[in-house]
Order: sequence, then C-alpha cells, then structure tokens
Amino acid sequence: MHQVGALSTDSSLTSDFFSHFNTAEREIGTALHRKHECSSVSRMMSITCFYIWYFLCLGLGLACVVCVCLWNSHWRGGFAWDGTSLQFNWHPVLMVTGMLVLYGNGAVLYRVPLTWGENKLPWKLLHAALMLLALILSVVGLCAVFDNHNAANIPNLYSLHSWVGLITAVLFATQWAAGMAVFLLPWSPASLRALLKPQHVWMGGGLMTLGIAACISGINEKLFFVLKGSTNGSQPYSQLPAEALLGNSLGVLIVAFGLVVLKILSTREWQRPESQPVDVTYTPLLQEENQ
Amino acid sequence: MHQVGALSTDSSLTSDFFSHFNTAEREIGTALHRKHECSSVSRMMSITCFYIWYFLCLGLGLACVVCVCLWNSHWRGGFAWDGTSLQFNWHPVLMVTGMLVLYGNGAVLYRVPLTWGENKLPWKLLHAALMLLALILSVVGLCAVFDNHNAANIPNLYSLHSWVGLITAVLFATQWAAGMAVFLLPWSPASLRALLKPQHVWMGGGLMTLGIAACISGINEKLFFVLKGSTNGSQPYSQLPAEALLGNSLGVLIVAFGLVVLKILSTREWQRPESQPVDVTYTPLLQEENQ
Repeated sequence: MHQVGALSTDSSLTSDFFSHFNTAEREIGTALHRKHECSSVSRMMSITCFYIWYFLCLGLGLACVVCVCLWNSHWRGGFAWDGTSLQFNWHPVLMVTGMLVLYGNGAVLYRVPLTWGENKLPWKLLHAALMLLALILSVVGLCAVFDNHNAANIPNLYSLHSWVGLITAVLFATQWAAGMAVFLLPWSPASLRALLKPQHVWMGGGLMTLGIAACISGINEKLFFVLKGSTNGSQPYSQLPAEALLGNSLGVLIVAFGLVVLKILSTREWQRPESQPVDVTYTPLLQEENQ
Repeated sequence: MHQVGALSTDSSLTSDFFSHFNTAEREIGTALHRKHECSSVSRMMSITCFYIWYFLCLGLGLACVVCVCLWNSHWRGGFAWDGTSLQFNWHPVLMVTGMLVLYGNGAVLYRVPLTWGENKLPWKLLHAALMLLALILSVVGLCAVFDNHNAANIPNLYSLHSWVGLITAVLFATQWAAGMAVFLLPWSPASLRALLKPQHVWMGGGLMTLGIAACISGINEKLFFVLKGSTNGSQPYSQLPAEALLGNSLGVLIVAFGLVVLKILSTREWQRPESQPVDVTYTPLLQEENQ
C-alpha cells in the first residue's frame, strides 16, 4: 500500500507538473497571441490612420487643381499660347498642379504601405517620374509667364514672388538631378547614398515650404493686380468679390494641402521600414499577406 | 628528465596559453578603444556640424531682423504708435522678429547639445518663454496693422496674405496653449504627452512653413503698394530701386533662415537623445564631461 501510495503520489506529482507545465504553456501562448493581436491591431490602426491622411492629401490636392483651373478658366478668360494674358493663365495652373500637388504626392509616395515590398526599384522609378512630370509642368509654367511678359513688355524677375519662385525651381531641378544621379543610377556607391539621403529628405520638405510660399505670394499678387475695382461696377479686392473669395480659398486649400503633406512626411511610424530601428519595424502589409 | 621535460612542456604550453590570452585581451582592448575613439570622433563631428548650422541659423535670424528694421526705419520713415503708416511699420518688424526669427530659434532649442542634461524642465520653460515672447510680438504686430487700417479706413482681412497670416497666428496661439497644458503642467498624464508629441512636432514645422509664406507674401504686397514710381523721379518696383533690392533680399534671407531651421529640425542625429532608439543614442555632452 505504501508503495502504491508512493506511486500514486509520484503520479499525482507528475500529473501536477504536467498540468502546471501545460497551464504555463497555454498562458505563454495566450500572452504571445494577445501580444501579436495587439501589435496587429496597432499596426492596422496606424495604417488606417495613414490612409485617412493620404485620402485627405489626394482630396485637397484635387481641390487645389480644380480651384485654380476654375479661377483661370471662368474668371480670367481661359487659356491660350499666344503671349496674351490668356497664356499667363497657364502659369498659376501649371505651378499649382506641378510644383505643389504633383510634387507633394511624389514626396509622400514611399509612405504608402503598398510600396513597402522587397523591390523598391519600381517605386523609385515612379517617384522619379512623378517628380520629373512636376518639374516639366513647372518649367512650362515659367515659360508661360516669361512669354507673356516679353510680349507685353513687362519686366521679368523683379518681384519677391518671382525671386522665391525661381529659387524654388532651380533647387527643385538640382534636387531632381542629384536624386537621379545618386539614388537611381546603379554605379552610385552605397556610402554616397547614405550620405546624401538626409539632405534629399530635408530639401524635399524644404521645397514643399518654398513652393507654398511662392504660390501664396503669387496668388496674392495676382488678385491685387486684377481686382482693382473700376467704374464699370466691378468690385476691388478689398470688397471681397466672388473671384477674391475663390482665390483666397485656393490659398487656404494650398496651406491645408501643405500641412497634410508635412504631417505624412513627419510621422515616423509611416516611414518605409528600412529607415526605422528594428524594434518598431513594420512588416510590410503585402509581405504579411503573402506569408 | 622525462618528467622535467614534461613539466617544461606543460610550462611552455601554459606560458603560450597566457601569452595568447594576453595578446587576445590586448587586441580586444585595442579594438574597443578604437571603437570608442571612432564613436567619440563621429559624435564630435556631428556636434561640430550641428554648431555650424546653428550659428548659421543665429546669423541668418539676426540678418533678417537687421534687414527688416533697416527697411522700415530708413526707407519707410521709422516708427510710431499713432495710427499712421509709421505705426504700420511695426507690423513687418514684429512679425519677422516674433513669428519667424524668435519662433525658429525656440523650435530648434532642444537640438542644442547643451540642453541635453538630465533635467529637461529649465529648457522646457525657456522653450515656452521664447514661444510666448514670439506670440506676444506677433499679436502686437497684428494690433499695429489693425490700428493703422482702422484709422485710415482701410478694410481689414481681405487679402490672402492676411488670411494666411491670421491662420498662422491662431494656430500658433493654439499650439502654445496646448503645449503649455500638455507638456508643462505636471498633472498632464504621460500617455497624453506621448499621444500629442508627434502632433506638436508636426505643427511646429508646419507653423514655420506658414510663417514663411505669410512673411514672403506680405513683403511682396508691401513692395508693390509703396514702389509705384511717380513723377518726382522715384522708381517703380519693376526697375528694382534700392528699397526693392533690400526688400527682396530680406525675403531671400527669410527663405534661407527657414531652410536652415528645417534642416536642424529634420536631422535625426541632432534630436534630443530620449526620442532616439537606444543603439544610436548620444551621451549628452555635459553628462560625458561630468563623468
């Protein structure tokens, strides 16, 4: 009996041990599962939050383009390429569309989780292509105003708006060429890429700031030029006629668009994983779905 | 002899072992010393680089203030508080000094390695005080223009410049009040601080952008208003008289100052260590010197 008792005690001890072991294992499993769930939930929340800001960015960008087109087609007489003020009208449309909206969308491209796959090259090419298109539109926009000024004997490049705009365009072209040479051409060494990336990122945000300053000062200047009020009953800028309200609203939309782009650029958890420390690295959405 | 030989072999093995051990220890010591030297050199280079940009920031800020004072005292007739255009002259001086230069210097304060000691509170108070001073100067600057407009029956708040400026001032006041309530008052919970810090940092950079846009559009507008050219021989803006060159140069200085502030804010290795991942954390300069 004693032996049986001892055996049964042994057996109960073993059973207790396995029971504790299994409970501990289950608890660890539950905790790990909960941790995984929490990290998945927090990642999903972060991605959802990103897409809310991203759609706001797309919506505001579209609103800017619609607004500047409406202003110049409906209130400024439409478009032509004949040296008249109708050619000038291309200037605000192309600068807002190119230097601001396309540029901003090109800048936030790498933040879209869809672009976080293993192969960065297609997105690099799309980033470079969007920026090149933005640059071309901006240069055509500058040609429009030079042509119009030259045809009407208006001096070029005297206002602060024109100085800031020209500085922005020159820096933008330099940024594009340097970005192409350093980050896209295959024979550029990794050390040079690592050295220039922070400068590229900084100048990217800086160009957004300069673009906003150039656009706001340009719209302000144009509204003062054209809304002088006259004897035929048209109202001056100071009485805020419909055109003034539209122009000012365009300015406010530009400011809102710029702030949203800067928000997307400055939020660290929305950056492409490679540039984040290991402990906060995201698994790219697509990779996770593929696993 | 055999035993002696065995002993001597043992002793030579032991001596070999210790010799190898000591060599290995020396090599590890040298490697660690070299690593420490490299990390010290790289830290010193980073700090030197920071101070070059910081002194550029201080120098450009000072140049902006000197330039805007010179413009309004020498070319615009000086200052008064009597509702005339001499009261208006306070507007550009106070906005450039407050909303731009003081604001920018307040924003980059935490990047100065001298502020990286254990106790952040004195620097938080200095940050809040600099921003409050910037806000007060900006509000007085707004009062100057409202007073002048009301005395001269000029409508208020119709231009895009005034809209952008007002949005900037309202957001600035909100940012200051929210920053005070969340980051300075002791009963604000840590979770709220963690939640709002990224928004505070984003809006901090955004306000710099809006401030630049407001200043550039304001200077541009003012130069068009006052440089009309007349029969008494004064030159219009389009002929770039000395005042136009000074005003445009002020605008270029503002753009350069803004870019330098954004550079300091965007460089991750210059951020206060607490917000960096562990593997790239700097030892604050003062702490290291104290050790």
